[in-house]
Amino acid sequence: MSISEAVPAGPQTQAKDQTTPENDQLFRRLMETRRVSLDLAAPLSDEDQVVQANPDASPTKWHLAHITWFFEAFVLRSFLPGYRVYDEKFEYCFNSYYDTVGERQPRDKRGLMTRPSAAEVRSYRAYVDEALERMFTDVDLSDEALALVELGINHEQQHQELLLTDILALFSDEPLKPAYREAKMGVAADAPGELTWTSFDGGIHEFGHGGDGFFYDNEGPRHEELIRPFKLANRCITNKEWIAFIEDGGYETSTLWLSDGWSRVSRKGWKGPLYWDEAEGGFMQMTLLGYRPVDPAAPVTHISFFEADAFARWAGKRLPSEFEWELAAEDLPVKGRTLGADHLRPMPADPKANGLQQMYGDVWEWTASAYLPYPGFKPAVGAVGEYNGKFMCNQFVLKGGSCATPEGHIRKTYRNFFYPFQRWQFTGLRLAADI
Amino acid sequence: MSISEAVPAGPQTQAKDQTTPENDQLFRRLMETRRVSLDLAAPLSDEDQVVQANPDASPTKWHLAHITWFFEAFVLRSFLPGYRVYDEKFEYCFNSYYDTVGERQPRDKRGLMTRPSAAEVRSYRAYVDEALERMFTDVDLSDEALALVELGINHEQQHQELLLTDILALFSDEPLKPAYREAKMGVAADAPGELTWTSFDGGIHEFGHGGDGFFYDNEGPRHEELIRPFKLANRCITNKEWIAFIEDGGYETSTLWLSDGWSRVSRKGWKGPLYWDEAEGGFMQMTLLGYRPVDPAAPVTHISFFEADAFARWAGKRLPSEFEWELAAEDLPVKGRTLGADHLRPMPADPKANGLQQMYGDVWEWTASAYLPYPGFKPAVGAVGEYNGKFMCNQFVLKGGSCATPEGHIRKTYRNFFYPFQRWQFTGLRLAADI
Amino acid sequence: MSISEAVPAGPQTQAKDQTTPENDQLFRRLMETRRVSLDLAAPLSDEDQVVQANPDASPTKWHLAHITWFFEAFVLRSFLPGYRVYDEKFEYCFNSYYDTVGERQPRDKRGLMTRPSAAEVRSYRAYVDEALERMFTDVDLSDEALALVELGINHEQQHQELLLTDILALFSDEPLKPAYREAKMGVAADAPGELTWTSFDGGIHEFGHGGDGFFYDNEGPRHEELIRPFKLANRCITNKEWIAFIEDGGYETSTLWLSDGWSRVSRKGWKGPLYWDEAEGGFMQMTLLGYRPVDPAAPVTHISFFEADAFARWAGKRLPSEFEWELAAEDLPVKGRTLGADHLRPMPADPKANGLQQMYGDVWEWTASAYLPYPGFKPAVGAVGEYNGKFMCNQFVLKGGSCATPEGHIRKTYRNFFYPFQRWQFTGLRLAADI
Amino acid sequence: MSISEAVPAGPQTQAKDQTTPENDQLFRRLMETRRVSLDLAAPLSDEDQVVQANPDASPTKWHLAHITWFFEAFVLRSFLPGYRVYDEKFEYCFNSYYDTVGERQPRDKRGLMTRPSAAEVRSYRAYVDEALERMFTDVDLSDEALALVELGINHEQQHQELLLTDILALFSDEPLKPAYREAKMGVAADAPGELTWTSFDGGIHEFGHGGDGFFYDNEGPRHEELIRPFKLANRCITNKEWIAFIEDGGYETSTLWLSDGWSRVSRKGWKGPLYWDEAEGGFMQMTLLGYRPVDPAAPVTHISFFEADAFARWAGKRLPSEFEWELAAEDLPVKGRTLGADHLRPMPADPKANGLQQMYGDVWEWTASAYLPYPGFKPAVGAVGEYNGKFMCNQFVLKGGSCATPEGHIRKTYRNFFYPFQRWQFTGLRLAADI
Repeated sequence: MSISEAVPAGPQTQAKDQTTPENDQLFRRLMETRRVSLDLAAPLSDEDQVVQANPDASPTKWHLAHITWFFEAFVLRSFLPGYRVYDEKFEYCFNSYYDTVGERQPRDKRGLMTRPSAAEVRSYRAYVDEALERMFTDVDLSDEALALVELGINHEQQHQELLLTDILALFSDEPLKPAYREAKMGVAADAPGELTWTSFDGGIHEFGHGGDGFFYDNEGPRHEELIRPFKLANRCITNKEWIAFIEDGGYETSTLWLSDGWSRVSRKGWKGPLYWDEAEGGFMQMTLLGYRPVDPAAPVTHISFFEADAFARWAGKRLPSEFEWELAAEDLPVKGRTLGADHLRPMPADPKANGLQQMYGDVWEWTASAYLPYPGFKPAVGAVGEYNGKFMCNQFVLKGGSCATPEGHIRKTYRNFFYPFQRWQFTGLRLAADI
Repeated sequence: MSISEAVPAGPQTQAKDQTTPENDQLFRRLMETRRVSLDLAAPLSDEDQVVQANPDASPTKWHLAHITWFFEAFVLRSFLPGYRVYDEKFEYCFNSYYDTVGERQPRDKRGLMTRPSAAEVRSYRAYVDEALERMFTDVDLSDEALALVELGINHEQQHQELLLTDILALFSDEPLKPAYREAKMGVAADAPGELTWTSFDGGIHEFGHGGDGFFYDNEGPRHEELIRPFKLANRCITNKEWIAFIEDGGYETSTLWLSDGWSRVSRKGWKGPLYWDEAEGGFMQMTLLGYRPVDPAAPVTHISFFEADAFARWAGKRLPSEFEWELAAEDLPVKGRTLGADHLRPMPADPKANGLQQMYGDVWEWTASAYLPYPGFKPAVGAVGEYNGKFMCNQFVLKGGSCATPEGHIRKTYRNFFYPFQRWQFTGLRLAADI
Repeated sequence: MSISEAVPAGPQTQAKDQTTPENDQLFRRLMETRRVSLDLAAPLSDEDQVVQANPDASPTKWHLAHITWFFEAFVLRSFLPGYRVYDEKFEYCFNSYYDTVGERQPRDKRGLMTRPSAAEVRSYRAYVDEALERMFTDVDLSDEALALVELGINHEQQHQELLLTDILALFSDEPLKPAYREAKMGVAADAPGELTWTSFDGGIHEFGHGGDGFFYDNEGPRHEELIRPFKLANRCITNKEWIAFIEDGGYETSTLWLSDGWSRVSRKGWKGPLYWDEAEGGFMQMTLLGYRPVDPAAPVTHISFFEADAFARWAGKRLPSEFEWELAAEDLPVKGRTLGADHLRPMPADPKANGLQQMYGDVWEWTASAYLPYPGFKPAVGAVGEYNGKFMCNQFVLKGGSCATPEGHIRKTYRNFFYPFQRWQFTGLRLAADI
Repeated sequence: MSISEAVPAGPQTQAKDQTTPENDQLFRRLMETRRVSLDLAAPLSDEDQVVQANPDASPTKWHLAHITWFFEAFVLRSFLPGYRVYDEKFEYCFNSYYDTVGERQPRDKRGLMTRPSAAEVRSYRAYVDEALERMFTDVDLSDEALALVELGINHEQQHQELLLTDILALFSDEPLKPAYREAKMGVAADAPGELTWTSFDGGIHEFGHGGDGFFYDNEGPRHEELIRPFKLANRCITNKEWIAFIEDGGYETSTLWLSDGWSRVSRKGWKGPLYWDEAEGGFMQMTLLGYRPVDPAAPVTHISFFEADAFARWAGKRLPSEFEWELAAEDLPVKGRTLGADHLRPMPADPKANGLQQMYGDVWEWTASAYLPYPGFKPAVGAVGEYNGKFMCNQFVLKGGSCATPEGHIRKTYRNFFYPFQRWQFTGLRLAADI
């Protein structure tokens, strides 16, 4: 997923008269978000934090510095009078892809920066946090400033998820197979109940974000779509079901696959989800909790769109569209999960529950929808606008958030997007069908 | 575009009682189509016909033999009792991509087959044509047989277009820049009139093929879509307008491009449409009529989706969806153009005409629609079904047919599709906008 | 091997007084060489002659035109007053690598030139031959002119060998596996006798060309080398011996290979010489005489230096140095073989003969000598000089000429050179050992 | 350069009776060598030590662990009764290329091992050092054991040089351009005197190692070579002279280059030595002492064979053969240099000195000699033997050692070797000529 970011228009601020409950709450959320990032890095050594697993992933240290630089570049420089940047050279080091901001360390060489050290990056964070606190205390913040802080929070949350998926990518390639955290769960999960279906009527419905609260530009405009009657599975596809697909020759049957998918499977020799090994006694899987037997009850994860699509064809079903998913989620509460070791694995569905489960916070669910602009889409002004719309080609929409998505970051209209071959995120699937 | 092809179910036929006008007409169309293929190859030497321009293109000789093999493999073997194949080895040589049929010459090595000779391929065609004639005379053809003949005609027409675009690809890389045919037009075309707009109301409309006559499976099912009010340009974008885009720095301005498009432009060093050179005195272009100055009045062609999309952004407009195009074409006649040298170039719009022009038969018009299945899409049974649906990923829909599309092959619901970076077909664009 | 070529210094000539026997003989050799090139192309259709097998090979038509252009560019333009070039554009088409001469068709796109046609290239040859005849008749040729004619003859001979090896490369990739010529030999060859050894004393010996007659600059200067006592095998390694190497796991045993060789074997999946297939009943081989069972008695051919070196290590022997080979050939006559179908295959050693056999005209024998300049090497002046010395890096010397080397072209001091991974020439090996 | 390593034959030892001065000295050298490795890593943070600059380079931590594992695998396990390996998994992590020993971390993924930590690697070193000390105290070491300790010392010295060149490669790609050490030299060096020549007679001379003391198998056998009279430059080519080559268009003149070299220059866009930038005011260079102006007086370094060869051609001279270099060094003492910051840069020649300078310890000097086996070369038995001979193809010999070569490691007969395109070592050149 691409990170939306903003270049603010101008630097005017004025001295502070009073504080408001809204500002206070925003400030508390900001500090809480900042703290969570450090918490996520806490189990890692400085050595763990410097290495880049692959050209698509970034080092932990880079994430920690980049999201800090974001506040410096787009908030503090503009809205805190007299702010002095921590180190002018960090802009080159930790800018991600702002052509307008200037030159930067090449993306595939982020892991070569042993300097500045992780310790210095922590000092940088403290320096910026202190300045943010001063800004909230001393400055009467404009709506633009507040919006950029909100954007910075969301931006940092996105990088928190990437930090976790990128560490998993790194640890999976290490011979010692380190665990990011120790699992607290000692017993295997109950098997989920049988897969059941919920039906939905067709008709014209409204989709997309209506405009209250924070959202990314790609979630709007809110608009109507014509939906046909469909049914949706009550839960995600499990590892056990995925093993049945493997054992039925799913990865060797060209007719189940899109042409580009089959070409990828053949070229890369895929035989199962990313991070899976076939071992004596069954499948093993590298996870944030270490190298473990695949849990049959948990939702399958680390699969590409190509694999999700092939599975659905094998099952005689299809993937839902992004609108079908959103319609089904209409009245469901957005469930958060407690942060902690067990947060870092998709949870099995509850065999006793009725209705839709696992819609939020387990795996990003691939949809059948190409990632395209909504009717009337207008990119936001400035760099923000540049960086969502430009990816609207050759990617597919995912919904619902994963076990690595921070609480408070996900919502019904959220449109994540990845290329159909990518699978280092916590990606899975839920089936749909026409009725 | 991928070619739809079929493996027939079985070989039962029975002796002929009578002929019907429908069969007679089908037979005449078949022979006419077969003749056109040879006509298209007539300006070429045997040496021209053997060489493969690039891995995506095929030699003329291969096209001529492959479409002949199609009738042998899927029609004659099944429906003409006692038919003996011309040469058993040709199946390996001229099969395109039927995994179920067996091994075949690798696609990127089609140009290595100096044997069989072009002369022998012509004998092969005559042998098969004679057998087809015998079949129509002697056999009481089942509906399945007739449907496969119809499919074979459409298949051959698709390859006629590819034959032309592949020869252009070859000749463009030759230092002597041969002309495929001599142009008959001696004078430059009039400039088209100003670009004007036609407005369309929104609402629920039906799209896709309803089922009478021949069509590909990807054109159905006929279904409803919700359309928003829009307007469509009366004509395609001209070379003159494209030159304005170039001269305004279109190819150097990253913000106009999709991210994947910009990456392609940078990596490949694109500075204009395929086959264009900048020379003293203006732009030159390799065409089927030779190496000539770019005609400012003609529709721009040989552009990728990325370029079409960037142009539209530069112009403050957008590309139409495939449904908007189809709605606009609702009541327009499907215009054919006389085959001949001037058939082989897009024609300028008529400055005196009103309303939509150039909808059919000039350039394939890129739409904003990702090539995805229509709701309820079911692939056809057998190999036919395998080969349209499997490409429904990462490609975009094009409408309207080009100056190289054979008469009688195009229709309103026809969905051509290419990857967004491809541009060796006669591809252009027409603008749309919201109202 | 790179082709040595020359740019002459100037264009002065004078009218002819008399002819000389030497000139007459040179002219006859020139015309004979020109005729042989056409003879070699005679079994091929025009379609065969246009296609390029791979980026290292050239089309027959290109060879025929290039060696003709050589006489036009470097002889006729300079020494035949009033000569008019056949077509100015041919310089671009048929120049090989003369930076000083100008731009040219890219090497890997020589096979895209369907124009000029093969028929026109034959006209071009006739035009140039007629002019060469006129030059010999009318002009009193300077030594420089005569030297360039001699060079042109040798240059054409080199391309005759390449023409054959390149056609083999092309036909080997064709599904119909055409034979370039029909073999005249109806019976399998006798097995060669046991491999025996000839011993040679050490000491200081002279090597390299002394300067009489035509030779390439890389064959000189003549100079002394210190040789240690050694012995040399009486014949080349046979296919039968090579099969023993294969069956003993030669291609799977890393310790037999140079590191770069092992890496090539692994990456390319080599399991035997180029053009070999393992079939039921034994190994098959694509040859100029068609697709045939491997002849156990014939010298192995189409092997790389890496393979030759690995075989020698497996056999507990080594490859000879280029000087050891030359010393052993000291008093041997340079044997020519009659041109014809059987010329096109390496001949088995004669079991009844004593002493060294197969030194000339069967296979190019890999030596252990890196291709480096002889002490005091001075590149020839002009383009000739540029084009032998610049390849003196990362290649190995081969001696003796192959069954595709034209009569009269090979000599004891001839240094052919190829990269250690190349094997589309008729390359084989002879063992040596210390004593 | 490849590292020679050994697999010992067997594990027999016996209890110790007495110590010898030779053993004591060996033990002191061992401990000193072990200490130097840690000293070399001391200026680096743990983060610096984990990252791999590129696939050819290794992380510092890997070097430190690998040379430790060498003693564990080949010495302690065999000769210290009761020795227990530190961690069984380290064999996978820190084996370099011993196929016979087993599977290992892929070479290009050595930088992904954030675990074990640098601190744990230091513990591993202490554990092994303690065991080595115990072995020397308690065990009566066989000649084989002592030879393997000697080999381990030399092996560790080779990795010390690589550690330095690999850190330079890493730091050169970091935006903050860190200095490995601070330079002690505050003033620019004097310009060296004019380049002068020393002449040598030809004749038969002996070369290669005679067998006393430690040497690698590729240095033998000692044998005779025939040398022609030549002269050798008194010093290496300086940066100032190299700048003259650049400014004379050396990198743009194809005729100065070997063909493979020119192809590399063009493809990679080389415009000067590795680590050089052209800046306002002159050339800058990344060094172990930081990012600094190029010192005109110092020998040029970080050049490939291709560049050295092109320079020599430009200068109208040539590179010496490895034998010419060795002959010239015949009576010169092998000079060591004090370890320290200034050790890490090539030193300018002394303008007041006469005769050959800079033969040892400044830059590895490219020779014109392909890296091939000496006559009668027999690889050593076991893995040692496998790993020098197998690289004898496509590489060139370098002589003399560089400023990063540890004291005591270099000698007259030492044959270093690299591919002609490599330049991340401290490589330079000295001219030679015929007389």
